[in-house]
Amino acid sequence: MGNESWETKITDVKPGEIRLRGYRIDELMGEATFADAVWLALTGELPAAGVRKLVDAILVASIDHGVTPPSALAAINAASTGAPLNAAVASGVLAINRWHGGAIEDAMKQFYAGVSEIEKHGWNFNEASAAFLDGANEKGGKVMGYGHRVHLTDPRTAKIISLALGAGLEGRYVNFALAVEQELERRKGKKLPLNVDGAIAAALCELGIPAELANAFFIISRVPGLVAHAFEEMKTQKPMRKIDQSAAVYTGAPPRNLP
Amino acid sequence: MGNESWETKITDVKPGEIRLRGYRIDELMGEATFADAVWLALTGELPAAGVRKLVDAILVASIDHGVTPPSALAAINAASTGAPLNAAVASGVLAINRWHGGAIEDAMKQFYAGVSEIEKHGWNFNEASAAFLDGANEKGGKVMGYGHRVHLTDPRTAKIISLALGAGLEGRYVNFALAVEQELERRKGKKLPLNVDGAIAAALCELGIPAELANAFFIISRVPGLVAHAFEEMKTQKPMRKIDQSAAVYTGAPPRNLP
Amino acid sequence: MGNESWETKITDVKPGEIRLRGYRIDELMGEATFADAVWLALTGELPAAGVRKLVDAILVASIDHGVTPPSALAAINAASTGAPLNAAVASGVLAINRWHGGAIEDAMKQFYAGVSEIEKHGWNFNEASAAFLDGANEKGGKVMGYGHRVHLTDPRTAKIISLALGAGLEGRYVNFALAVEQELERRKGKKLPLNVDGAIAAALCELGIPAELANAFFIISRVPGLVAHAFEEMKTQKPMRKIDQSAAVYTGAPPRNLP
Amino acid sequence: MGNESWETKITDVKPGEIRLRGYRIDELMGEATFADAVWLALTGELPAAGVRKLVDAILVASIDHGVTPPSALAAINAASTGAPLNAAVASGVLAINRWHGGAIEDAMKQFYAGVSEIEKHGWNFNEASAAFLDGANEKGGKVMGYGHRVHLTDPRTAKIISLALGAGLEGRYVNFALAVEQELERRKGKKLPLNVDGAIAAALCELGIPAELANAFFIISRVPGLVAHAFEEMKTQKPMRKIDQSAAVYTGAPPRNLP
Repeated sequence: MGNESWETKITDVKPGEIRLRGYRIDELMGEATFADAVWLALTGELPAAGVRKLVDAILVASIDHGVTPPSALAAINAASTGAPLNAAVASGVLAINRWHGGAIEDAMKQFYAGVSEIEKHGWNFNEASAAFLDGANEKGGKVMGYGHRVHLTDPRTAKIISLALGAGLEGRYVNFALAVEQELERRKGKKLPLNVDGAIAAALCELGIPAELANAFFIISRVPGLVAHAFEEMKTQKPMRKIDQSAAVYTGAPPRNLP
Repeated sequence: MGNESWETKITDVKPGEIRLRGYRIDELMGEATFADAVWLALTGELPAAGVRKLVDAILVASIDHGVTPPSALAAINAASTGAPLNAAVASGVLAINRWHGGAIEDAMKQFYAGVSEIEKHGWNFNEASAAFLDGANEKGGKVMGYGHRVHLTDPRTAKIISLALGAGLEGRYVNFALAVEQELERRKGKKLPLNVDGAIAAALCELGIPAELANAFFIISRVPGLVAHAFEEMKTQKPMRKIDQSAAVYTGAPPRNLP
Repeated sequence: MGNESWETKITDVKPGEIRLRGYRIDELMGEATFADAVWLALTGELPAAGVRKLVDAILVASIDHGVTPPSALAAINAASTGAPLNAAVASGVLAINRWHGGAIEDAMKQFYAGVSEIEKHGWNFNEASAAFLDGANEKGGKVMGYGHRVHLTDPRTAKIISLALGAGLEGRYVNFALAVEQELERRKGKKLPLNVDGAIAAALCELGIPAELANAFFIISRVPGLVAHAFEEMKTQKPMRKIDQSAAVYTGAPPRNLP
Repeated sequence: MGNESWETKITDVKPGEIRLRGYRIDELMGEATFADAVWLALTGELPAAGVRKLVDAILVASIDHGVTPPSALAAINAASTGAPLNAAVASGVLAINRWHGGAIEDAMKQFYAGVSEIEKHGWNFNEASAAFLDGANEKGGKVMGYGHRVHLTDPRTAKIISLALGAGLEGRYVNFALAVEQELERRKGKKLPLNVDGAIAAALCELGIPAELANAFFIISRVPGLVAHAFEEMKTQKPMRKIDQSAAVYTGAPPRNLP
């Protein structure tokens, strides 16, 4: 090779010393949580004190959604054929695309665009959400981040919103997302609620994450769930069974509350 | 389909209610860290108070190791051809196998086997480690979890060991792993130190994780690093470049300490 | 890098000249079939005249088996989430493992072992198949390559057998496979016929392919089928639908014969 | 599941009968080549007599290009970590994207657009290629399918062109592609030759393949090459070696000609 050097800003590895974004990994261990390290790897900085809970909550929110999502089906299906754990997980990750997980990225683009209009025109949130929905209508576009095929009201949404509003951030994206929800209800005569993807999108906008990284948060969050499904399949099912997602029955721990 | 029902013990999803291992996800959000949720997804229980730091440390330890590991190369290479983020990550995960990441599983099997001999024969750790190395020799087998191609002494090892010994666990696996290290030095006349894979293996044995799940922890830990490399490639490099890992120069944040 | 050189025996690329196993690719184009080139890439030689039909038949045999195999489900499922074609195909390939496609490799190992016993003991095929089944019984092992979850008699089996016997090969593996089929029927009192995987396994043994390459033939054969399913999904279905394989109805070309 | 039926037009599987696009697979075996079956799976019909050689040549053309393409690196790299064959192949397939393999699709879109202008305006090929390059210039767009980072003149190009022109097709796309090549030379004062991707693109346009299927042909063609590289790695190299593509030395069969 020409041995032309190229730059990386993520990790510096020397014998006896590994630094992630400047911090020694062994110093992070025991001090930083995994979510801190995820944030550091992706953004270059540790999360500010006020936003640590929000970051954790975003990663917890999407960790699993049972056996029906396509990513879970992919992991279970691969495991059923005898795939090793990493291949089952990879198969699951390959099912996280525009229509599964991808709503966060699309919603972020909308919210970034919508809020930039606020600034340009000096609008308030009501004006901005009305203009936003007019624009979406004209372009025949779908409004992303509202409604869910399972949950009429997604319990995760309120938690993300409340943590985002309590994190000392500006709140423009969250408030815009909520204004759009109200305007949608006004126009449709029934509630089409902000869903968890929309709430996470608004929160990630507040945190300054580029829209193209949205899928990363979903992937990182969901991988442990994919592992759990693949491992359960390996341990409890016969190989090459027909997998009917709708016939799954939950037989795990009964409902319980945190101590 | 015959609609024969089948069991899953991971997540129960009802409209407006998602329970992971019995806990509402929206209740976990804001209370549990991401590492707590990972542990809950994989083991069925939240980590005991004493082991939370250890779990976080295990997940932080392997989050990234620069551009040279095969998983990083796979993610960078795929991104360089125009792969979307999830495909680049999947490609990276597919490179986590027996020879990259897999040492943890092999070391766990050794430690589980070695410690079960202690119990069977009433040996002390010295006797057990000697018998263990004799056995490995006879079988011509490699002792997994010792030595590293980059780090003479891996700074992450001591941290895992110290957190594992301080977590109120029995300590048999960690002590056995350390006894093997000493016996190795005695036999070879030079140090072949316990490496980070070996230390994590011993810690996961203490925590009662099955060896077959070892790779899962490495995968979950490394995925954020793979995302960071794939995203950096997309943002800063020309497509289809020749990737010479040895020509990478770290130009990120300078060395710094935690506040 | 140390720039230590390493060897490859597959393809030599110079400006204006690409040679696969010594042959110019542009000379192969127009003269060799794709199956010839596949054989050349994998074995280092073009197929002998007598075996070309057999090689083509082996690759045609597994090209598709409808929507129910796990590899098809994986490709369809990924496509349904918006995956690009290559990621859908990769997902399908990741479902080709021990329990799907892998029977060929296991059957090859059996046939190689069984026939080597013939040579060692000077047995005839009847003696060898009896000894083989006795041995399988003792080890509690499953006999691979016999029976099918859909086809009582697989129409592809007879074709492979007849092409293999007509290809001027020694026929020991095919005859052994057939002797095992007869012995199985004698012992069970009903037919457990050699299936297509078993027939392909016997044929690949005749052709001297190492057992570890068995899966390669299945993968190469099935990839076009995976492409067809992924592309059909993209073109004809709504994203993120629930995929019930058993509800698929074939509405394609009616039954027809070759001209 | 609601068991709502859905349609598939690819393969009909009944006990004892498997029909691909209406033809019995066991009837195809021994009569059809693998390339015939690939064409049948993808397009729904067997190739016309005149185009069989062209289809084979297209699939042979991209079967391998040595160790340097990103897809080969991905397969070799995964194999080096201990990945099974299918995971190594999947990793290779994940590296076939816009910048590797994807030029065929982009070139097809250009050729379809360019030739439709001919029909609209009643242009000859010279006028059309001039207008096409003017348009590309205005949009600042790259002209796809011309030039190559290794081959000044790609020997595969002439073969595809000659087979396409001899296949009894209309020839509009091939002639347009050649007219663009001439116009490019006129404007630049030096040859920027049609490359193999461009030639395949023109041929696939002649054959009426939709541009979105272009990548499929590259994937199907390249998978055997990926298998060969992964298998060679497993058999001849130490695990976890540093893979320097530029240090590979070809030591295979010497140059030879077809008999």
